Amino acid sequence: MNFNLTQIPDRIKKPRNSGITMVMDKGLSIPEAQNMMSVGHPHIDIVKLGFGTSFVTPNLREKIEVYKSYDIPVYFGGTLFEAFLIRNQFNDYISVCKEYDISYMEVSDGSINIPHAEKCGYIEKLAKHGTVLSEVGSKDAAHIIPPYKWIELMSAELKAGSSYVIAEAREAGNVGIYRGSGEVREGLVQEILTQIPGEKILWEAPQKAQQLYFIELLGCNVNLGNIAPTEVIPLETMRIGLRGDTFNLFLNGNGQH
Amino acid sequence: MNFNLTQIPDRIKKPRNSGITMVMDKGLSIPEAQNMMSVGHPHIDIVKLGFGTSFVTPNLREKIEVYKSYDIPVYFGGTLFEAFLIRNQFNDYISVCKEYDISYMEVSDGSINIPHAEKCGYIEKLAKHGTVLSEVGSKDAAHIIPPYKWIELMSAELKAGSSYVIAEAREAGNVGIYRGSGEVREGLVQEILTQIPGEKILWEAPQKAQQLYFIELLGCNVNLGNIAPTEVIPLETMRIGLRGDTFNLFLNGNGQH
Amino acid sequence: MNFNLTQIPDRIKKPRNSGITMVMDKGLSIPEAQNMMSVGHPHIDIVKLGFGTSFVTPNLREKIEVYKSYDIPVYFGGTLFEAFLIRNQFNDYISVCKEYDISYMEVSDGSINIPHAEKCGYIEKLAKHGTVLSEVGSKDAAHIIPPYKWIELMSAELKAGSSYVIAEAREAGNVGIYRGSGEVREGLVQEILTQIPGEKILWEAPQKAQQLYFIELLGCNVNLGNIAPTEVIPLETMRIGLRGDTFNLFLNGNGQH
Repeated sequence: MNFNLTQIPDRIKKPRNSGITMVMDKGLSIPEAQNMMSVGHPHIDIVKLGFGTSFVTPNLREKIEVYKSYDIPVYFGGTLFEAFLIRNQFNDYISVCKEYDISYMEVSDGSINIPHAEKCGYIEKLAKHGTVLSEVGSKDAAHIIPPYKWIELMSAELKAGSSYVIAEAREAGNVGIYRGSGEVREGLVQEILTQIPGEKILWEAPQKAQQLYFIELLGCNVNLGNIAPTEVIPLETMRIGLRGDTFNLFLNGNGQH
Repeated sequence: MNFNLTQIPDRIKKPRNSGITMVMDKGLSIPEAQNMMSVGHPHIDIVKLGFGTSFVTPNLREKIEVYKSYDIPVYFGGTLFEAFLIRNQFNDYISVCKEYDISYMEVSDGSINIPHAEKCGYIEKLAKHGTVLSEVGSKDAAHIIPPYKWIELMSAELKAGSSYVIAEAREAGNVGIYRGSGEVREGLVQEILTQIPGEKILWEAPQKAQQLYFIELLGCNVNLGNIAPTEVIPLETMRIGLRGDTFNLFLNGNGQH
Repeated sequence: MNFNLTQIPDRIKKPRNSGITMVMDKGLSIPEAQNMMSVGHPHIDIVKLGFGTSFVTPNLREKIEVYKSYDIPVYFGGTLFEAFLIRNQFNDYISVCKEYDISYMEVSDGSINIPHAEKCGYIEKLAKHGTVLSEVGSKDAAHIIPPYKWIELMSAELKAGSSYVIAEAREAGNVGIYRGSGEVREGLVQEILTQIPGEKILWEAPQKAQQLYFIELLGCNVNLGNIAPTEVIPLETMRIGLRGDTFNLFLNGNGQH
């Protein structure tokens, strides 16, 4: 860090399993990816190529190389996994990941309905090829999953081999663990945390108020995802109490986690 | 496209008259324009230099050259046309277009009142110098145009020589064919489409929900405009069903247009 | 300017004391800062490194050099000043400014409570080291300061040595002189202006409607701050009447200030 300031909370150092910032790249050019990494490299842990954007983005291979040069794992958005699956092209999906040297894979069912045992089967299979993140929560705002069910699903997916379970929010942050307004379903989040270890959950939190909620609840080393490229530095600043919203959180032993 | 996926709807290939993506550049630097084109070149059809931004943007000529190198036509936002017109500098406008080698021109009356016959006269005159796009709809939220009038205006402007009529939305997407909230005036849109061929209309649709509405209504090859540079890839992904919102739209013969 | 257009209001030329555009950089990379300056250099007057972002941004010194090469003064966001202060590291703050060759400094109390005489003391001290901007208004939405108090605070701070007083809005534009919705507290603004010269106030106005309000109230040479990098050119265009919102403002002697 650039200056000497006391009472800055300890961020776990990279490579880390907790305190993760996952960025959503929804079509950056090569120079834009390089620009992001040139300031973001100490703070970014994983990059997701959002939904199916990797299908239509030129220079995909070169961009993945940029991230690899910073030791940043990259994965395809869950919507792409689902697009292969619904077309009966699951094996093609594995081939594409190999072809692009992608070792992180998301298993999700945000847009399709599959029996949960089958979903866990995909997690098991892909866990043999690399690191699996699996997502819980529908992209359909009308499809409400009760808290006990979130817990059941997350437990089963971790058992099946997921390294993290992702709490769905969509790019906009208005479904899954959030209401249509973007407000956190606090009761849901807190009930999940009674059963699932916080460090195994990656909370999609594209909106600032959402990031703030989780930092206040779980501390500076909470796992946050779907962060926009321009918000990497502001988020890191908020994590350590140097943004107005969290200014007092870590002072004098406040909010230690 | 990067992978092999079945059931992807057919996008018309560039150069195309339908299925157009028009981007609004509101002051990009040369490298930013190059970055956008390096990933956007297969998907972008036209670039608009938004409202009067071209007046205050340094290196304008060089930026137009960047777009030309990708065979992308560029035009000045309608507000600039109106700014010349209200100052009795219509001939200067033609000179400026020639000076910058601009052959697409927008004729609009979003901020000024001119008799419609006079507006059509400008369309006729400019159509001798290049391709004309003319815009219908006021930027003044309080000025409501009834549907039959939209149809009359659009018909007359196409007859006068417009290659496309643009349905006004402003950069924010909150006037014209939208309510102040950004919601589509669906009745208006559907009534317009009973009389004006969809492929002659360029719908300004800066918001994602607006883009989604038109893709659902008119298919993947609808003409959409006022797209932000960072939304080119996400929009293309949504057009072909690889974003959650349109995931099911093109599967099993759904939504074929 | 690129074309010849009559009836364009006179913007004061740089370097200027009035008509200032202050940009908030919240973590740009070196190439992004260069891109912004390559189009923004005729329009940008001051760059603020927002809140504590400078603490976690790599290549900070090189970025400050980029701005210096365009003769643009840079300062650290007030939250960083407050972070040093609450840790009893005020002298370290002065050292850091010297170390980075920063001669503009913000004194604020948006996140901490300090007696106003003490705040004015800091202004006096820092004014010996460079140019001071001091900010009035809390970042706490629940903490309402009545208009007469805004005037008292601003007067005292200007007397203590501030070159400008900044009217707080936060990055989002939803506190201080704005309601939670972003709407301007018009009565407050107008009462402030009965006592404090407009040219000594830098209005934080990140939202377009806020920028419009101040341009309509105070003319094209109003001081505006917390402008996003991508909004520099659109703001300049709005200032001179080449955006729909201000199209008629400067025509035929309208709105001369």
